[in-house]
Amino acid sequence: MRLSRLLRLQAIFYSKHDKWLAASIKHMVGSKPFNLNLYKLALKHASVSDESINGLKISNERLEYLGDAVLGTVVAEFLFLKFPFRDEGFLTETRSRMVNREALNQIAIKIGLSKIIEKEYKGKNLSAHKSIFGDTLEALVGAVYLDRGYYFCKKFILKRIIIHFDVDDIISTTTNFKSKIIEWSQKESKEVDFKMVTVRGNQRFKEFVVELCINGDAIAEGKGATKKKAEQEAAKNACEKLNIAS
Amino acid sequence: MRLSRLLRLQAIFYSKHDKWLAASIKHMVGSKPFNLNLYKLALKHASVSDESINGLKISNERLEYLGDAVLGTVVAEFLFLKFPFRDEGFLTETRSRMVNREALNQIAIKIGLSKIIEKEYKGKNLSAHKSIFGDTLEALVGAVYLDRGYYFCKKFILKRIIIHFDVDDIISTTTNFKSKIIEWSQKESKEVDFKMVTVRGNQRFKEFVVELCINGDAIAEGKGATKKKAEQEAAKNACEKLNIAS
Repeated sequence: MRLSRLLRLQAIFYSKHDKWLAASIKHMVGSKPFNLNLYKLALKHASVSDESINGLKISNERLEYLGDAVLGTVVAEFLFLKFPFRDEGFLTETRSRMVNREALNQIAIKIGLSKIIEKEYKGKNLSAHKSIFGDTLEALVGAVYLDRGYYFCKKFILKRIIIHFDVDDIISTTTNFKSKIIEWSQKESKEVDFKMVTVRGNQRFKEFVVELCINGDAIAEGKGATKKKAEQEAAKNACEKLNIAS
Repeated sequence: MRLSRLLRLQAIFYSKHDKWLAASIKHMVGSKPFNLNLYKLALKHASVSDESINGLKISNERLEYLGDAVLGTVVAEFLFLKFPFRDEGFLTETRSRMVNREALNQIAIKIGLSKIIEKEYKGKNLSAHKSIFGDTLEALVGAVYLDRGYYFCKKFILKRIIIHFDVDDIISTTTNFKSKIIEWSQKESKEVDFKMVTVRGNQRFKEFVVELCINGDAIAEGKGATKKKAEQEAAKNACEKLNIAS
């Protein structure tokens, strides 16, 4: 028996609220928590938490930082294995489309985390902090990782988080923004032009800054390690600005 | 015995070069490889590799993408445990100062990976691709992760990579670029000014773009989710441009 399991003995002293929380987490994560305090911490979003110890605010931000890294790794491996013939550019882009605040918010609602948060902060206005669900989901991943180790956490992410992604849909809409904007310009009879603004950095680490001009007016800017990446980012920003559906 | 260990039986058929490579990797990683092919792939940097299968270029970029994620997680946890009272901003900043191309290049040289790469690509001019060592180190982490699993890989990173970082030194030089540039301007009797250029994005996800002007001339730009972060980045870029030592 792993030493950490002894922490389960704490369950004897659980309050009524603790019992409810432990049961909810078991339902969500797939197993009872060893160390319930980690999960309690994961629920303390900086925007609503008002506890502090020695002037240090108690919030889930540190767990969120850790969970973000673990989630990134598991999703990275998932895509690596799922797409053996795609290059790393595709994998990186698909991952960032999966692990973003909006998608994580949706999943937090789907797995019932939002319900727990709402119950924890009954009476507080949560709608002002719309990323609270996604942030807390990342913190939860951090808590599961610390509580149960990497492989348990990986299984949790694969079986209970990634399963909610429609990966094929995400891929089919992984947009080439540059062609989007050019398509749009042809339809609207406008002239699109990319202008190099600056190239920063030394010989080894360059950063290109590119402006996208429509009929001569700069409307968006993009940066990147290559000219192509900078143009793609500029096109993406332009699509957002012009409300061109992706 | 894990099934993957059966791969070690391949060692019977190792060529002389394979034997040398397996021994080098054992020396570097701490254990003989199960699947030598993963390590061979990790050594194929896109800039020097010229093999391809069905038009798909064989390179270590996919392994680099995976290794980057695993390395990020292990360093994230290392800092999380080492600094229990620092906030996530500090942890993120320190991590990015540890896991950058330049630092990884240095470590690849220290652990002897550069020697292996040089021997593999004897006769090719590697000096044109200065990030080859750091890139390959990340790919090596990816190979170790796939070959031996997370905990072995974590031990490898902690004992053989992170050990080379002088973390205290990294922290003491975690620079506040904004105060650097203001200090400089006072010494040089110049006027420093931050100008907000644009605020992009919607209500929830904002991006501030700030210009740093010296005597009225914009010399650097910074972006960030808050005005403070954008100013800090602009100051950092300005320090680089003006060669102000950090």
